[in-house]
This record gives sequence, C-alpha cells and structure tokens, in this order.
Amino acid sequence: MKLADLPTPCLVLDRARLMRNIRGMAGTLERHSVPLRPHMKTAKSIDVARLALQGQPGGITVSTLAEAEYFASHGITDILYAVGIAPGKLDQVAKLNANGANVTVITDDLLAADAIAVHPANIKALIEIDCGEQRGGVLVAEDTISELASRLGAHLIGVMTHAGHSYQGRSVAEITQIAELERSHVVYAAQRLRAEGHGIRIVSAGSSPTGRHADTMNGLTEFRAGVYMFGDLFQAEIETHGRDTIALSVLTSVIGRYPDRLLVDAGALALSKDRSTESTPHDYGYGLVQDIRGEFALGAAVVRRAYQEHGVIELDPNSMVETPVGTRLRILPNHACLTAAAHDRYYVIDGAEDVVAVWPRMNGW
Amino acid sequence: MKLADLPTPCLVLDRARLMRNIRGMAGTLERHSVPLRPHMKTAKSIDVARLALQGQPGGITVSTLAEAEYFASHGITDILYAVGIAPGKLDQVAKLNANGANVTVITDDLLAADAIAVHPANIKALIEIDCGEQRGGVLVAEDTISELASRLGAHLIGVMTHAGHSYQGRSVAEITQIAELERSHVVYAAQRLRAEGHGIRIVSAGSSPTGRHADTMNGLTEFRAGVYMFGDLFQAEIETHGRDTIALSVLTSVIGRYPDRLLVDAGALALSKDRSTESTPHDYGYGLVQDIRGEFALGAAVVRRAYQEHGVIELDPNSMVETPVGTRLRILPNHACLTAAAHDRYYVIDGAEDVVAVWPRMNGW
Repeated sequence: MKLADLPTPCLVLDRARLMRNIRGMAGTLERHSVPLRPHMKTAKSIDVARLALQGQPGGITVSTLAEAEYFASHGITDILYAVGIAPGKLDQVAKLNANGANVTVITDDLLAADAIAVHPANIKALIEIDCGEQRGGVLVAEDTISELASRLGAHLIGVMTHAGHSYQGRSVAEITQIAELERSHVVYAAQRLRAEGHGIRIVSAGSSPTGRHADTMNGLTEFRAGVYMFGDLFQAEIETHGRDTIALSVLTSVIGRYPDRLLVDAGALALSKDRSTESTPHDYGYGLVQDIRGEFALGAAVVRRAYQEHGVIELDPNSMVETPVGTRLRILPNHACLTAAAHDRYYVIDGAEDVVAVWPRMNGW
Repeated sequence: MKLADLPTPCLVLDRARLMRNIRGMAGTLERHSVPLRPHMKTAKSIDVARLALQGQPGGITVSTLAEAEYFASHGITDILYAVGIAPGKLDQVAKLNANGANVTVITDDLLAADAIAVHPANIKALIEIDCGEQRGGVLVAEDTISELASRLGAHLIGVMTHAGHSYQGRSVAEITQIAELERSHVVYAAQRLRAEGHGIRIVSAGSSPTGRHADTMNGLTEFRAGVYMFGDLFQAEIETHGRDTIALSVLTSVIGRYPDRLLVDAGALALSKDRSTESTPHDYGYGLVQDIRGEFALGAAVVRRAYQEHGVIELDPNSMVETPVGTRLRILPNHACLTAAAHDRYYVIDGAEDVVAVWPRMNGW
C-alpha cells in the first residue's frame, strides 16, 4: 500500500521521525537521570506507547479515563490521570484498579480530597501545583496545600505540576526560565510537605518545551511529556524542535483549482481549527503544505481557510509543481494533539511513500 | 437516566428544540414551495435525519462518502455528495450506487468532468457554481461552465451553489441580499445551460442563514441546510435564529475552583477550537455557560481558554449559584458542526433533565 492509494483525508505518521523524536527526549532525560512517564494524550495508540516506553520504567500519563481503560486493556497498568479528578469519576477509577490497573489521580480541591479520602477503594493521589500557568493547581505558598495533604492522609503519594505556560515562551532562554519555575515550584512543594511529615514519593513535572530546554531536573522523580513524539508547527516555532522533525501530517487530495488557490478535502475536521501559530513568528494558517513526499515543493503555501470538509490553500507564486485535481498533498499540523484526535488510525510510513503499518488510535471519553 | 448521572464531557441534544427548529425550516420552505434536502453533515445521525425528512421528498446532502455509506446503509439512498469530487473517489461512489444508493457528485473542474464522463459507472453530477464566496465553484459568466457541461454530457443533471458567505452577514438585510445572490447565480446558470441545450433538472442552493431570510426562492428545485437543526451561538449572533433555540450543548463537570475562574472537563476536544463568535457582536470564547437545567444561572460566564481536556470558565460576578467541584454545567457551542464531531452519541433530553434516548452518530471518513 502506498500513500497514493489511501482514502483522503487521512493521518500519516513517519516512523523514522517518530523514533528520532522518542530517542531525543529519552537521551535528554537520561542526561538528567530522570525517568520519563510519557503522556499518551497526543498519540492515544498502544503501538506508539510501546516505542515511547523503551528504556523507561513503564508508567504513562493520560488525559481521560477512556485512555486509562484503553492502555490498561493493553497491559500498561501504571497510569497517572493528569486532569483534576471530579468526585463522580472515583468509582470509575476504583473499577479500573480493581481490574488490575494502578491509576493515580490528581487534585487541588479540598472537597475532592475529602471524596478521595472517604472512598472505599484505596485511591492514591498527587496534589497539583500551579507553577505559574494559572490553569489548575494550588499555589505552593498558600496553606491550602497543607490542608489538602492532611485531608488526603495516606492517599497522598506525591506532587505534580505542568508548565503549560512554556507554550508562551518565544525563545530558548525564556523556556529554560519557565522550566526552572516548573521544577522549583514542585520541588519546593515536596520539601514543604515532607517537612510537615507527609510521605512524598513522587515529584512529577513536565511539558515538551521544558523537557527539551531545562538546565536541571534536580529533585524530580519523573518527567512527563507527549507532543514531542510527533512534534508540530507550533512546537517548531517555539524551538522545542526543528520543523524537519514533524512526524505527523494529513494526507489530502486537491478537489478544486483556481488562479490564486487550491481546494483540498482536508478541512476543519481533518486539521482541527487550532490556530496556535497565529501568535508565533510564522503564521501557518491551518497548516503548512507539502507534496506527497513530504517536501516543500509548493513553496510557503498554507491552508488559509478551513471549512468543515474544505481546506483553501493560498498558492505561493514560488510553487514548483503542477497540482491538478486529484493531486495528493500533505499538511503539517499546527497542533498535533488536536489534529490527530479527528482520526481513528495512523498510516505509518518510514520516510518513503510506502505504508508499512496501520496503527489504530482511540478517541473520545 | 438523568443528566446528573452521565459521564462527562458528553453531548446533550434537546429534542423539543430540535423539533421546533426542524418545523421552522420546513415551514419556511413550504411557504416558498421548495422542498428540503437536509444537509446531514451537522447531525450525522439517522435518528435526526428521519425527523428532518418528515414531509420532505427523502433526499439528503452529505459532506463525506463515509456519511453517504452510513445513511445508505440505513435506507436513505437519494444522496448529494456536496463536496467537489476527486477523481480517485469515483470508484467508491460507483460501488455505493451498485449497492442500491443513488449518489450524485459535484464538480467545477474540467479534469474531474472528464473522469466522470469516462467512468464505466453512470455517475450523475451537478456543476458547482461560485455565487460569491470564492471557495469552490465556477463563475456563471465564464465559458468554463459551458465547457464543463459539454464534457459531462448526459451525466449532467443540474447545478448547485452554497452561499457560505452568508456567514459573513451581520444583519437580516445583508443575509437577505446574499440569499438573492445565491438564488440568482444558480438560476442564471441553469438558464444559460438550458439555453445551450443541456438537461438541467436540479437547481439546488442553500445555507441555514439564507434559508431563514430569503425573500424568494423562485427557480430553485431544492434547498439545502443543516446547522439550523441544532443552531449554535454563531448562528444566533448572525440572526439565523434566537439564542433560546440552540438544541445542542456539552455537559461538563467542574474539576477545579479558583477566585476568578472554574476549571471544567470540557476542553478543546469536547468543544472544538472554533472561535467563530470572535467576529460577532458577542464574543463567547469557546462557549457560553449554562447550569444543568439549561439556564443562564452563571450570568454571562464563558469558556475563555480551551486546552485539550481542560476548559477555563471566566466567572461572571453576577453568577447566582455555587459551583463546587463536581457541579455539572452545560456549554452552548460556537459552531455545532465542529463540536458535535468530537462525540459519538447524543444524550437526548426533552426539555427537562431526564435522558429520553441515546442516538449514535458517525464521524470520520
């Protein structure tokens, strides 16, 4: 099977680039002597998880309990559910654990901590720390963190944070600073709680940009990252990686030709409406266009408009190829996590145009 | 089963509002004496299709061949695939038709017209007209339209257009003008081709805003619309309907509480990253917040930030309710088509909080 034979739109994964990205992050963490707990929210695929876990302890991070169920059913049991737990979801966690999984939850809320403490299943939890993003998490200087620890009691096994604001960094120096905020906040929280007599085994931090650019990971017991496996245009723009390491693309067919533009069958659903490169040095619209071989033969052409099933490619006068109706193109995504989530499988290539495998992925909740 | 018992995030469909919206569009078209070919790209559900087809001839519009397969397998055979055909997809159309469907394709491209003409299956086609949106379609004044008709020969059965630029209208008067552009372009195309000796049976136009506000539909043989069934914040902002007719919402749980904001478990995947209300009188962020009963008890609170699985609700000081962790809320979507596409089922309510049915929906390609 070749890319030229696939139904479009569909998702293409370049295994050579994937492996290079996985080895890159593993090598970086090895230098810090910190193990990786890969975040599977981007790939949502057991095949990718097995590659990302090579040489690692074996635990993963997930963003939904549906992911936890999927990976547990494939034999990965050490799972951190890294989204604040709603009390109503504890029964589902308990059921997963009763069936052999070992799902740990996170919270920053006193009522949720009470619910964990009184739940008949012995569910383990981390306290979520806000290291500056102002999304979830308690502030390390506030007394709430001690109150949370007291209420959780023996259910508390660690602390975690995520420097999502590393995505706002626009230089390596800035991301390195945010990495140090991420590390120092969660390490301080661990020290504070240990001093108060709590058993803190896990000190967990992570994001792909901070993993790439941290000066030190002293005090962390594990690191979490996910999007680094695939990479995307946004991560390339903020210098998490080079543009030539992006392993994910959407294969599409030209369905209309006009003097200034092409119409393709990859629109808002196949690409997502993520516009994260709008705020970066290069605004790639809804994605950057390559030819079927993954080369920039169309110059700097981007998907400028995205309707449900139509993408409008603004043509670059420097395009070097003819693109009649039926021509296959590949679109590099702004945000790999969101683009991948529209698709139920990866068509895996290994640099060339031959499809060497089809890997299913799960979605939903 | 009640909304309070459902896993979150999930999709809620209010059947009373759905039926009111369906009857509204049917009544409008009846006054114009034009039948409806409902566009199923929003709902992608056989249960919704059956309701939308009440009192109509029975044909539908789809945006993917996967939709065509799904609806054909449920007995709806008269299908217009209203996205420009790539020649490589003709075999799939032929297979569907050989199995009992009657799928018509559209094109505006000479090479695609040739491919249709030489394909061994007798595939019928409409010529797509550009009535001003500059997405797909030929211009009615250009000779290409005649050339397309000649090349299609007996495969040509009609013309179609879609005034997607009605979404740019910001007043009823403006949308009424765009509706007249939509109608007059496609009717002119039909007249031109008839004068040239071509058999033009189908003169098809449509969008939800122009359906609502057209002064006349003279010369059309059918009208297409889809999003009117559910409605959304964007359509309410451009006055396709009132905000109180939106039938679709995402049920979510509060997972974090902070002085200025709430964290909920509906993020970019459950809501989509559509930001179409950014350009309308009210910018609703990633969605407008209701309580579980569908009332605006939280004032004007909106989802201001959307991460993969986290939504950040900016609290309105006028909120009248307490929202501890675990509280269920409902989020009205900016763009129903994209929000629904993240979900595999509708939890159907009938005004109150009891779930009266679960309707599956299909996705993907």
